[in-house]
Amino acid sequence: MRATLHHLEQTILQRRTADPTASYVAKLTARGRAKIAQKVGEEAVETVIAAMADDRAGAVGESADLLFHLLVLLADLDIPLDSVLDELDRREGMSGLAEKAARPSD
Amino acid sequence: MRATLHHLEQTILQRRTADPTASYVAKLTARGRAKIAQKVGEEAVETVIAAMADDRAGAVGESADLLFHLLVLLADLDIPLDSVLDELDRREGMSGLAEKAARPSD
Amino acid sequence: MRATLHHLEQTILQRRTADPTASYVAKLTARGRAKIAQKVGEEAVETVIAAMADDRAGAVGESADLLFHLLVLLADLDIPLDSVLDELDRREGMSGLAEKAARPSD
Amino acid sequence: MRATLHHLEQTILQRRTADPTASYVAKLTARGRAKIAQKVGEEAVETVIAAMADDRAGAVGESADLLFHLLVLLADLDIPLDSVLDELDRREGMSGLAEKAARPSD
Repeated sequence: MRATLHHLEQTILQRRTADPTASYVAKLTARGRAKIAQKVGEEAVETVIAAMADDRAGAVGESADLLFHLLVLLADLDIPLDSVLDELDRREGMSGLAEKAARPSD
Repeated sequence: MRATLHHLEQTILQRRTADPTASYVAKLTARGRAKIAQKVGEEAVETVIAAMADDRAGAVGESADLLFHLLVLLADLDIPLDSVLDELDRREGMSGLAEKAARPSD
Repeated sequence: MRATLHHLEQTILQRRTADPTASYVAKLTARGRAKIAQKVGEEAVETVIAAMADDRAGAVGESADLLFHLLVLLADLDIPLDSVLDELDRREGMSGLAEKAARPSD
Repeated sequence: MRATLHHLEQTILQRRTADPTASYVAKLTARGRAKIAQKVGEEAVETVIAAMADDRAGAVGESADLLFHLLVLLADLDIPLDSVLDELDRREGMSGLAEKAARPSD
């Protein structure tokens, strides 16, 4: 059965307090929030670059890295994944036009 | 019932070809991949900044924006969300130590 | 005569306390450091995307935006441009090989 | 005498074709534009994080890294630093109000 993001979230929460020499999550968490946030930013940059290079295999790997580190950051902020999904749900409930109107035009 | 990322993925796929004046997804898609990738990078930067400011409400909103635009980018690359989850699954299957060994030390 | 970064730095320092309705620097500064930092991150993303698209004219414009907002951020941090140039000078003084050794292998 | 960005630009242009085992610039250039662009994005993220952490020493170092890698990227795009400074000059010539009007409201 495919691991869901919720399953990964649970694994990350368990590993946060594991031995940093045995767990990447524990090691990264021990380095502090700035280091976790840095990884989120870096993986996003790599996702952008893979997309621009039309490197689909690379984009799969970098997107996985991005999602993984985003979950580690949310855990460090004590934010459940469900809070983020609820926010997406709230926006999704808006009609296409309302959604568009509610967004900054960037 | 809470919207899942898979549900959001389906909605995005449907909206891509909608009227750009009525759908944000259609409008952004019409602007091209560089613009979609730019939004992914920008939302990641805003997520990083909210996390560093310990702004939990902001981090929820920016993480939602980041996930949303990542799904729009994956759709534009014709990459199913499941391909990314399978990649996470593959890594998750590794033991904590093996996982650590398999990652660059950054 | 071509404006130097030092000249631009002086202009930015003068404008920081100007009327926010008349000066972009004053307006951005009034919005706070997080907003300035966000602009630096966003312009870097746009520079990366222009480079990957081999859009040379775009890369010139985005690099100018990046340098401009970096100077606004340094001013907000009360860091003189010369402190950054001194740091580059210090590294430049190292031989090519030593420089390489002193950098993380990324 | 303090090294200028123009001096650093010349050094980078000379090192691009040096032995990659002896020069960081040559090594990075050999890895290709995507890798250089990635470094620009990563150093910008680190600059943003140092600024948000109010880490002034860190911001000096990361800004130096960002400027350095931006010059390596411009060299790879065959864009002279002066083209970027000319663009800043052109904007600087506008009055504060005109400058503001000419920029997107973000």
